[in-house]
Parts: sequence; structure tokens; C-alpha cells
Amino acid sequence: MNMERIADLLFEALMLKQIPRSGYSFLGAGKENVAEHSFSTAFIAFIFSKLEPDADAARLMSMCLVHDLPESRIGDLNYVQKQYVSADESRAVEHAVAGLPFGSDMQALIIEFNTGKSLEARLARDADQLSFVLNLKALQDIGHTSPAKWIPCVVGRLKTATGKKLAESILRRDRDSWWLDQYDDNNVTNK
Amino acid sequence: MNMERIADLLFEALMLKQIPRSGYSFLGAGKENVAEHSFSTAFIAFIFSKLEPDADAARLMSMCLVHDLPESRIGDLNYVQKQYVSADESRAVEHAVAGLPFGSDMQALIIEFNTGKSLEARLARDADQLSFVLNLKALQDIGHTSPAKWIPCVVGRLKTATGKKLAESILRRDRDSWWLDQYDDNNVTNK
Amino acid sequence: MNMERIADLLFEALMLKQIPRSGYSFLGAGKENVAEHSFSTAFIAFIFSKLEPDADAARLMSMCLVHDLPESRIGDLNYVQKQYVSADESRAVEHAVAGLPFGSDMQALIIEFNTGKSLEARLARDADQLSFVLNLKALQDIGHTSPAKWIPCVVGRLKTATGKKLAESILRRDRDSWWLDQYDDNNVTNK
Amino acid sequence: MNMERIADLLFEALMLKQIPRSGYSFLGAGKENVAEHSFSTAFIAFIFSKLEPDADAARLMSMCLVHDLPESRIGDLNYVQKQYVSADESRAVEHAVAGLPFGSDMQALIIEFNTGKSLEARLARDADQLSFVLNLKALQDIGHTSPAKWIPCVVGRLKTATGKKLAESILRRDRDSWWLDQYDDNNVTNK
Amino acid sequence: MNMERIADLLFEALMLKQIPRSGYSFLGAGKENVAEHSFSTAFIAFIFSKLEPDADAARLMSMCLVHDLPESRIGDLNYVQKQYVSADESRAVEHAVAGLPFGSDMQALIIEFNTGKSLEARLARDADQLSFVLNLKALQDIGHTSPAKWIPCVVGRLKTATGKKLAESILRRDRDSWWLDQYDDNNVTNK
Amino acid sequence: MNMERIADLLFEALMLKQIPRSGYSFLGAGKENVAEHSFSTAFIAFIFSKLEPDADAARLMSMCLVHDLPESRIGDLNYVQKQYVSADESRAVEHAVAGLPFGSDMQALIIEFNTGKSLEARLARDADQLSFVLNLKALQDIGHTSPAKWIPCVVGRLKTATGKKLAESILRRDRDSWWLDQYDDNNVTNK
Repeated sequence: MNMERIADLLFEALMLKQIPRSGYSFLGAGKENVAEHSFSTAFIAFIFSKLEPDADAARLMSMCLVHDLPESRIGDLNYVQKQYVSADESRAVEHAVAGLPFGSDMQALIIEFNTGKSLEARLARDADQLSFVLNLKALQDIGHTSPAKWIPCVVGRLKTATGKKLAESILRRDRDSWWLDQYDDNNVTNK
Repeated sequence: MNMERIADLLFEALMLKQIPRSGYSFLGAGKENVAEHSFSTAFIAFIFSKLEPDADAARLMSMCLVHDLPESRIGDLNYVQKQYVSADESRAVEHAVAGLPFGSDMQALIIEFNTGKSLEARLARDADQLSFVLNLKALQDIGHTSPAKWIPCVVGRLKTATGKKLAESILRRDRDSWWLDQYDDNNVTNK
Repeated sequence: MNMERIADLLFEALMLKQIPRSGYSFLGAGKENVAEHSFSTAFIAFIFSKLEPDADAARLMSMCLVHDLPESRIGDLNYVQKQYVSADESRAVEHAVAGLPFGSDMQALIIEFNTGKSLEARLARDADQLSFVLNLKALQDIGHTSPAKWIPCVVGRLKTATGKKLAESILRRDRDSWWLDQYDDNNVTNK
Repeated sequence: MNMERIADLLFEALMLKQIPRSGYSFLGAGKENVAEHSFSTAFIAFIFSKLEPDADAARLMSMCLVHDLPESRIGDLNYVQKQYVSADESRAVEHAVAGLPFGSDMQALIIEFNTGKSLEARLARDADQLSFVLNLKALQDIGHTSPAKWIPCVVGRLKTATGKKLAESILRRDRDSWWLDQYDDNNVTNK
Repeated sequence: MNMERIADLLFEALMLKQIPRSGYSFLGAGKENVAEHSFSTAFIAFIFSKLEPDADAARLMSMCLVHDLPESRIGDLNYVQKQYVSADESRAVEHAVAGLPFGSDMQALIIEFNTGKSLEARLARDADQLSFVLNLKALQDIGHTSPAKWIPCVVGRLKTATGKKLAESILRRDRDSWWLDQYDDNNVTNK
Repeated sequence: MNMERIADLLFEALMLKQIPRSGYSFLGAGKENVAEHSFSTAFIAFIFSKLEPDADAARLMSMCLVHDLPESRIGDLNYVQKQYVSADESRAVEHAVAGLPFGSDMQALIIEFNTGKSLEARLARDADQLSFVLNLKALQDIGHTSPAKWIPCVVGRLKTATGKKLAESILRRDRDSWWLDQYDDNNVTNK
């Protein structure tokens, strides 16, 4: 087996730590790279796999882990950039998977994600958007005003009932409820 | 279903972007947060799921996605810190999963990872170490000297045959072979 | 005299520049490392030494300079982390001072600080909290909303009359009064 | 007592976290702000106070804590900048201490430091240089080449026997000896 | 021709990327280095050259490109620092241009800028201030409160009619109007 | 005159501060944004305007100041990305200049730069490459190894005799010769 091509793939995925999600500078708040975003998306996919027993968990998580791999070769294109730039993502994927024993599997996962038809793909795409909703809500909680303009339109892209319900609950909570609510407030203040 | 507890869990996982892997400052080179590390580990798990057909792919990737979640409450403890600090990880996990419909599943995954007995757990733990090997090799390739001291001991922690083979191939490649080798060198230089 | 152990101690203290105060990412605003915090705390101790003639100035400042040294081995634990992690600080201190000619002095200073009984220790602990109040007020002045929740509880931890009075005056001033008030405003605007 | 002027002084000292030591960009390696440098200098002063029983410990540490306060109003001037810029440090100090109950004490400490005659001032000035030697050695240990050019000249500025001995021991140690030497190496590598 | 002195000049200008504009930390918001500021100023000069046909375009842009070169040797002095520091800018310029074939031209450009009499110099100085207005407005748009205090006084420094009109239009627009207004809003939200 | 469209253009150019030059993360060393790069390029153009009396100085500098403006809408595409992405730069330029009184002038300048035929365009393109050579040499001087691989190919892209001579002299100098050579070394070391 061609282990060196696999090593190359790992170094290629490592590059995602260096690719900033370009939308945040247009937003004027926040900061995230593609590796952080991919973690967040795959983590939501893990949750979906628990909430949606009909979905194939492995395919759902795999799709999220690889969905932005082509950005190592293409960069992260935001809404404005997509007006002017057209990326040959298929070619980037072909080059990324060339010589890999499981190359056609990876290719199929990325195509499935982009097509967005299967249950798993619709959940994966919602995970992708929810990861953005989560960041926008956290930025709003610390006082940024620009997310208010974007949250409705990102939420509007959601396709699954579970994704929509999760978005609503994200918007009802605060970024720090997860720990503030678990402790006795008196304790927090008197530590 | 308690969707708000799920939202809280997502905000808790988002905190992993803020937690630096503390070992890098002891190393004197590189920088990574726990979200980036978790992506890298889960991505390697995806690859393992393709190379090891006997492993349960969903459990393997899930384990990697959640294995460092307790660090949102505990922080990232490096080798030196572990000499002095003892963390009640079970309690952190209990609090993180309290009220979640799939809480006991998450708990079981983290226990399985920490126990390291099952095939999936051994692969997940190797993915965790390989993610570090990959970073060390990339730092070495750009001229840092400290990784030379650490690479052998991180490689020494690997338990699976596939993990060991992958480590060897990582060490044989350069951080930029993945793209330098795919293009005609003349083209690169004459662009 | 074992000068090399002293050199080691200096390199250990240098590590405090690499340790972020972990509370700020939970706050969602600001950024500080342990070296910066230690400077701020010791500077306030210097001021206390001028306002409190009964206090032993050298012991007070020394206590503040060394109070967070164990964090080089333990990391900086915030309120949430302390719910799950227990640190053997005595062991960290023992290792840090082993072989030092003035090791037992350092150890005694850290114990005195932690016990918080002596006048000097109470002032040093108030300096530690005031350094946090100062940062929270400066963050509030530039528009962050989260400090409002924390300022009262940090102020509530103060024990000395001087510390309390200083906190009040910090909260009455703006982060930039120190220079804005000293110049003729017309000049500022017409420069 | 004018507590508000004291609050202003604290906000002024807080500004030192924002002032980069400008020499590092000329060096092409490392990064430090004036607050971090002041901590490092005062910490070395604490050590000197233990090694030099004839020195007045409180005056020595106080001098180091305040020696760079004027940089809040003047900025940090490196060797090159000093060829072109002349700073009226006395005026900066006068403005910083105006209206403070202990203002003339602070002024006297800064003058004593700059004059460099008293035992305490000579130790404080050596602490200032040793803090730089320490950083240069740490940069050299991780592979930077430029410190080699600067270390001899910074060491050449030292005036006290203790300072010189400490510099020698700093140069003999590695930046990570403080913890690497304390653990059984096998343990480190087999963790 | 002395090409090596020209190479030195380029390395000197490269240092401007390392010099932070010190006013932003006093403002408590934003961040900019002298190279970024110089680009912004020269870009506005390009625009002025189109709006003011009487101005010598080459001299106007040249003046903006070199106006902050002395900061490589002097640093960036803000309003507070200028109360205490006096810089021998002529000497810095003399050293920077020594041995250059076009040295006296450069010197003349910087003197012309500082004198501020010629049409080109007045436009160049307005470009310098407008670059700051632009940043302040962008900071205000994302929620910072401190620019409100500074915008009127920076605008008050403008000398040319064109500069004043441009400032007014900057203050009427939002930082993201340039792209938000060009697309159909529905498209933006439905992407 | 449509001053608001001009304000929009300024905010668009301000975005260049947020766009990282993506090649540096592939290089594994250094960091630069498009605004910094544009300054550097325009500064070299200023020098060329002094060395090449036949060139139209205003057109040469203008070309360099605007040559990367389309990157606000397109992003910065490096060698790898250009294998997969095709950008409609003309459309980006059209949108950027729409409604500007001097829009067609700007458009013509960018076309002239891209065509690379005129003397000014050839010099501007060499300035673009020399700005990269300068950064690579500075990275090499502080110990990075990767520039050695790239310097020859970037130098190989130069077209003008002056550009080639300047590249040679850049490679002969050190990043800090500009100030180290101007002072008496003894002074430097005894400061």
C-alpha cells in the first residue's frame, strides 16, 4: 500500500490550519481557520448521528471531515469572492486523492456533500451552516453587532427539521450558559 | 428532546478553539489549539477506517471527535503539568453530558478511548499521537531543532501496526511534498 | 553556590510569558499571560507598600513576584477548571525551589500568600484581585459587556480597606483618564 | 488621599502590556512587551535580594518595578532609535507622579536607577540586562542565529560580580533544563 | 551606481511592517503598522491625483510613499509621546539617504511634506489624516465607541476642500457598503 | 462628483489589510498581507522612477498602488491555487471602478500591468517580484531554510536590467546592514 501518498494527504489536511475562513474579515468580527471549522462541523455531525438513527453515522461524519479538504488547494472562498472566482474543485479533489487506496471513496463523499441530496448530505450541509450560526451567536453575545445581519440568512439555508430546531436552541442560549448554569451562582461570585 | 442542552454542548465544544495545546510552548516551536488537534485526529481516524475494515468506522471517528471535549473544563495538560495536577475527568464528562439524550453514549466513548483496549480505541489513540508526529515533522522541515528530541518518543507510544507504518511514511516525506511532487518543477520555478 | 539552579529558575519564570490566563477566553474578551499579570500584581504591591507603612514592603513585593510561579508547572486554572482539577502546588513549589540557596524562603512566601493571614498576604491577595478589576474596567471602557457581570464578584473578594478604596477609584476612572486629563483638550484635538 | 490619581497610575502601568520592546524586530526573532520585561527584571531583582544581603531588598525590587514606567509616555526606544530621538524622561516621570502621595519616592527611584551608582541601582541595571540575556539564550536554544551576535555585548554591560556569574550560568543551561533534568528521561519518553 | 545602498534602503522600508502605529493602543481598538498606513496614504494620494489635475501626481504619490520612512529609525510617535520625545528627523533622513543617487530628492520630498505648503504637500497631509479617518469609521461600524471621540478632531486637521468632502462621504458610508450595495440583497441572504 | 463611490473604493482598499498573501503558509515562514505587499511594491516603483528617467513616474507608481486591488474581491491566489481556480479579474475591476469618475483610468492601469508590455508595466511587475525577493532574503537571514528553494525562481521572473541588478544587490546584503553598517560597531556593543 502506498503509505507515502497517505502521509502526503495528512500534510495536505494540516494546511487547513493555515487557511483563514475569509468571511470573518468581511464580517469585521471573529476569526476561524478551516481546520477549526471542520472540527466544529464534524462534531455537529456526530450529534446528528445520535439524533437521526436512519442516517449512516460513518458516512455523515466522514463527509464533514473531508468536505473542505479541497480548500488546501483552492483556498476559502466567501460570498463576495464566489462572484468572481470559479474553482475547479473536481480537479483539486482528483489531485488530492490520486494514488490513494481509498481515493474514489473520498471523491464520492465530496461529490455527495456537494450534491446535497442524500439524508447524510443534507445533515452534513446543515452541520456546516450550524457551525457558522454557533460562531455568529457567540460573537453577538460578546457585543458584536454585525452578526444580527447574517444570522437570519445563514439560518435560512438550513434544510433539515433537526438542523432548524438546533439553530433555534442555539439562538436561545448564551455562549457561556453551558457552565454558568451548572454552578450555583453564589459560588461563582464568591470563589 | 432537550435541544437547549445540545446547544450548550456545542458552545462547550466551541471553547476548544480557545484552549492552546500547552506542550508547544514547552517545545519552543509551533502552536495548536484543541479544536485543530481534534480535527487532525478525527481526520486520521477517517483514514484508519479505510485501512482497517475490521474497525467500526463510526465508533472510531466519534471517539476521536469527543476524546478531548473534557479539556473545555480541564484545560490541556502537558507532560510536566501531569506531574502535579490530577484531573477528575469523569466528573467533567458527567457534567458535559448531563441531560443529553445521548449522554451515556458519549461517556462510554470517552471511557473506551481512555481504556485503550478495543481495536477502535487503539487506533484512536494512535491517531492522537500521529497528529502530534505530523506537526513535529512539519516543524522540523522548516528548521526547528527541538522536534528531533521528541519524535522518537511520540512514535514509541504507537500501538498498532498501521499507526507505526504511517508514522514511518510521515517521517520520510516533507511537509510540502503533497503539492511539490505533483507539478512539473520547471513549471513551479517559471510560473 | 549553585548558580545553574538559579539559571533554571529564571528559565522557569520565563515560561510564565507563555501561559495565558485562561479566564479571559471564558469571559470572551481580553487577553493576558501570567508574566503580565504578575507584573501588574507586583506593581500594585509596590503602591500598597507606600500606602501601608506597617507592611513589610520587601516581603509584600516578593510574595507577588513569586505567587504564580507554580503555574509554570501547573498551568493557569480558572474557576471552571478548579471544579475538576486538583493541583499539588506544594510539590510544584518543592521542585521549583529544590537546590536553591533561598529555596525555603520562596516556599514560605508562597505558603504565606496562599494562607492569606498576615497583613502582607492580605495585601498581596488584594493586589492579585485588583489587577483583574483593572483589566475588567479597561475592557468595559472600550465597549465589552461581559465585565459588568464579573466586576462585582471580583471586588467582593477584596479584604483590606485600602484595596476596597482603590477598587472604587478604579471603577470611577476611565482607562485613558491618566493622559486625557493632563493635557488641554483643545491641544489634543488640534494637534 | 487622592485615590483617583493612584487609579490613573495603575491604568498607565497597564499600558506597558501594549508597548512592544522594539529591539526584537531589529533582532528578527522573539517578542516581548514592557510589562513582561518588567516582571522578568523584578523577578531577577528578587533573586538578587536573596544573594546580596547588603542590598536593600525593597528598594531594589521597587526600582525594577518602576524603571520602565516612563515608557507608557515615551515608548520603548531601542539602540537605533536612540541615535535620533531624545526623550525628556524627567518630564514624563513628573507627569506620571503628579499628585501622588508617594510621587517623590517614585521619582527618586527612577533617578537612582538611571544614575546607576548605588549597590541597588547597579543590581537593578544588571537585572535589566540579564532579563535580555535570558531571552536571547532561549531564542538561541530553539535555533535562532541572530542572538549569537548580541549576547556578548549585552553580557559586556553587566557591572556586578553576581550578575556576571548568573549570566555565565544562564549561557551554560538550556531553556528547558529546569524540567527536563528533574524527571527520569525514560519516563519522559515513555509517557 | 551604488545598488547596495538601494538594497539597504529597501530593507529599511521593510522594517515599517514591524512598527505598530502606537496610537491604536491608546485608542483601545484597531491595529495597524506603518507599512499598511503608508499604503493607505499613497492610495488616497493616487485618488487625489485624479481629482486634482493641477497637482503633480508623481510628486504627490512619492511624498506619501516616503513620508513615514524615518519611522524605521525613530519609531511611530503618537500624540502623548510627542509631549516628551523630540526626534531629530532630519538626521534620520540624512542617514537613510546617504550614498543614494536620488538621496537629495527623497530628502526634499520629506521636507516638503513636513512643511505642508505646496498643493501636493497639503493633499499628501490630508491623505495621511484621511487614512486615519477611514480606520476610525471602520472601527465604529463594528461597534467600537472610542472613535466617536477622535473622528471630529482628525477631520478638523484637514486642509483641502477635496479632503474635507472625502471625509464627509467616508463618514456617510459603512465599511461594507462597497460590496453589500452592489449585490441584490436577496441573493446575499439566499446564497 | 460621486464622492460616496470614492469612499467605497477606500473601504475596499482597506480590506487588503485583511487579506494574507497565501504563499507564505505554503513556504512555512513569514507573513504578509496584501496592503503591506502593495506598499513595498509601490516603494520599489518610486525607486525605479528615480533610476529610469524614461519611465512615466506617476503611471508606474499608480500601477503598483492599484495592481492588487482586485484581491479585495478575489482573494490572494498562490501558485498552487492558480492550478484550480480561475478568477474573472476584469469583472472584479469593473465592479470596483463602477461609478468612479476616474474608473476607466484605473481599469487601464490594471490591464497595462497585467499585459506587461510597456516600460512602466515591466518595471511595475519587477517591483512586484522584488518585493517578494526582499522578504525571502530577510527570512533567510534569520535562519529559515525554505527561501533558498524559491529565491532563484522568483529572481528568474525578473525582466528589466535594473530589476536584475537590484535583486543581485539585495542578495548580497543582510537584512540589518542598513543600520549595522552605519554605526561604529564598538558603540553598538557598548551601548
